[in-house]
Amino acid sequence: MGQSSKILLDHGSGGRLSHSLVNDKMLPVFQNPVLACLNDGAEILIGNERLAFTTDSYVVDPIFFPGGNIGDLAINGTVNDLAVCGAIPLYLSVGMIIEEGFPVADLDAILYQMGVAARKAGILVVTGDTKVVPRGAADKIFINTSGIGKIPEGIEISGHNAKPGDQVILSGTLADHGIAILTQREGMVFDSPVISDTAALNHLVRQMLEMSSGIHVLRDPTRGGLGTTLNEIAAQSHVGIRIVENRIPVKPEVAALCELLGFDPLYIANEGKLVAMVNPDHADNVLSIMQKDELGKDACIIGEVVSGHEGQVFMQTRIGGTRIVDMLTGEQLPRIC
Amino acid sequence: MGQSSKILLDHGSGGRLSHSLVNDKMLPVFQNPVLACLNDGAEILIGNERLAFTTDSYVVDPIFFPGGNIGDLAINGTVNDLAVCGAIPLYLSVGMIIEEGFPVADLDAILYQMGVAARKAGILVVTGDTKVVPRGAADKIFINTSGIGKIPEGIEISGHNAKPGDQVILSGTLADHGIAILTQREGMVFDSPVISDTAALNHLVRQMLEMSSGIHVLRDPTRGGLGTTLNEIAAQSHVGIRIVENRIPVKPEVAALCELLGFDPLYIANEGKLVAMVNPDHADNVLSIMQKDELGKDACIIGEVVSGHEGQVFMQTRIGGTRIVDMLTGEQLPRIC
Repeated sequence: MGQSSKILLDHGSGGRLSHSLVNDKMLPVFQNPVLACLNDGAEILIGNERLAFTTDSYVVDPIFFPGGNIGDLAINGTVNDLAVCGAIPLYLSVGMIIEEGFPVADLDAILYQMGVAARKAGILVVTGDTKVVPRGAADKIFINTSGIGKIPEGIEISGHNAKPGDQVILSGTLADHGIAILTQREGMVFDSPVISDTAALNHLVRQMLEMSSGIHVLRDPTRGGLGTTLNEIAAQSHVGIRIVENRIPVKPEVAALCELLGFDPLYIANEGKLVAMVNPDHADNVLSIMQKDELGKDACIIGEVVSGHEGQVFMQTRIGGTRIVDMLTGEQLPRIC
Repeated sequence: MGQSSKILLDHGSGGRLSHSLVNDKMLPVFQNPVLACLNDGAEILIGNERLAFTTDSYVVDPIFFPGGNIGDLAINGTVNDLAVCGAIPLYLSVGMIIEEGFPVADLDAILYQMGVAARKAGILVVTGDTKVVPRGAADKIFINTSGIGKIPEGIEISGHNAKPGDQVILSGTLADHGIAILTQREGMVFDSPVISDTAALNHLVRQMLEMSSGIHVLRDPTRGGLGTTLNEIAAQSHVGIRIVENRIPVKPEVAALCELLGFDPLYIANEGKLVAMVNPDHADNVLSIMQKDELGKDACIIGEVVSGHEGQVFMQTRIGGTRIVDMLTGEQLPRIC
């Protein structure tokens, strides 16, 4: 938690303070082995059914941005958390907190996009709740989605399963979502604006899992970015992870904006990307499956899992050196999702 | 939705505008038969397992009140929504939106109470999410809980199942939660303050369902109060409901405050009460089971389901007349839960 007596923006960054909030506050209170796994979703057993269960609140600012709005973001984000558990997303809940005075036309636009996203992902919204709070008690609209998925027999995907030798595959370019939000928020105007990558990854994941039994870990690098995600996996699996900077795809305009604004794309949120740790004998096959899908067409191998260096992520830089990639410390971009 | 181009507090009241928000906006966008049932939780089938799935966001103000805080309210409320579907509550998610600067000590107190409530209800918190928004973007803390429960074989509880002749049983006194919140919020000081009734009803419900096969409907009258809940059931089951005013238990101090403040206890939120529609041959048995439980000790039969008067609730008043009990229109008490 750090020493602060107040909650800081950093506690919601997805980085180091977020982790200590979970580890120091939540786990002791709710102690149980399922929660303690700390995957993107919980794996629960009901009768003979293995299910994944996950929740996320969306507080993105602005609520409309190039490539989407808070509505499809809230559907896709939770679908993705289920998908990277290896689950087939089935059912969603939607809980909305709306500020008094919010335009009904904006709500319509958000709901419309949620409907489109849910149909595209093939998930049913089956239950919901709406609260309205007085003007000034919330900023426009917050949306929570919780999801349930079914984990097919034989699927064992977990942040704990990375093994030395595994190839690290990234499904596409980094930092598109975060930079889209930031430039929209700051009112930066470009001829061709950066577009958020918000998308549901479940169909891509389904193909990967159906065609290969060599996938050990799946994770979508959202808040905290790829750097934080890889650190989480390295810690959970007690392995090291080595990545190669010039293999990591970043769109030129995104790279330029990161440079200009002083951000490292490794720590910027993505909303339609995944990272996979794959048995080396299966890596080429998985890669070619991914590249055939629109959402994986830029997929590439960016590194590998190594023994030793337990819990550490390090990167071979463009200039040939090696640097440690730490978990995100501090908050780069509040309200990114 | 009414004609407003802006979202009003009434849209979150649980009453008429809330219903039109759901019916006019949500159902068309997410159209599917499960959502359209509009029970407190959705009944979903995964493999051979019948599950209940529900969500609620808690935005109560103040967050600490006599009898509880936003934390145990968020656990109990969702446990109750599962219980009144006839489900055994199993797993919860917790999504928190916290305002920057929120005191860590308050978060500790809230989490502590959540842990106590979860253990008491016998439910596991297995997944969570925390967002922190900048100062002024949210009022202190909002908590979403979503829950999954298992519906045992043979249980068929739904707002659609009320049958003419069914006895209407209320588990205890009305309006305690709403009046506790209101008096706390307004800074009213009393020798013995009104205490919120926040409590998990699942153990009470379990006993009722295990001992009787004659229970058709269960519902917890939260936002919108008993008046609105009975209207929902009357509409869903295409029946009339007749209640008798002087059988409805209200604590004297709560009744006095309602009188003083101009509130009708029929429309004030409860957070630890249920209403049951029970086959008349089973009603005495169910009542005596309920009265043996601490949370049902004041249970009583307050009326019955009638044929004709489809979708209507009417009440025999203390002075001997009869009046229509409509669904809540307008918002009495924002941020009550």
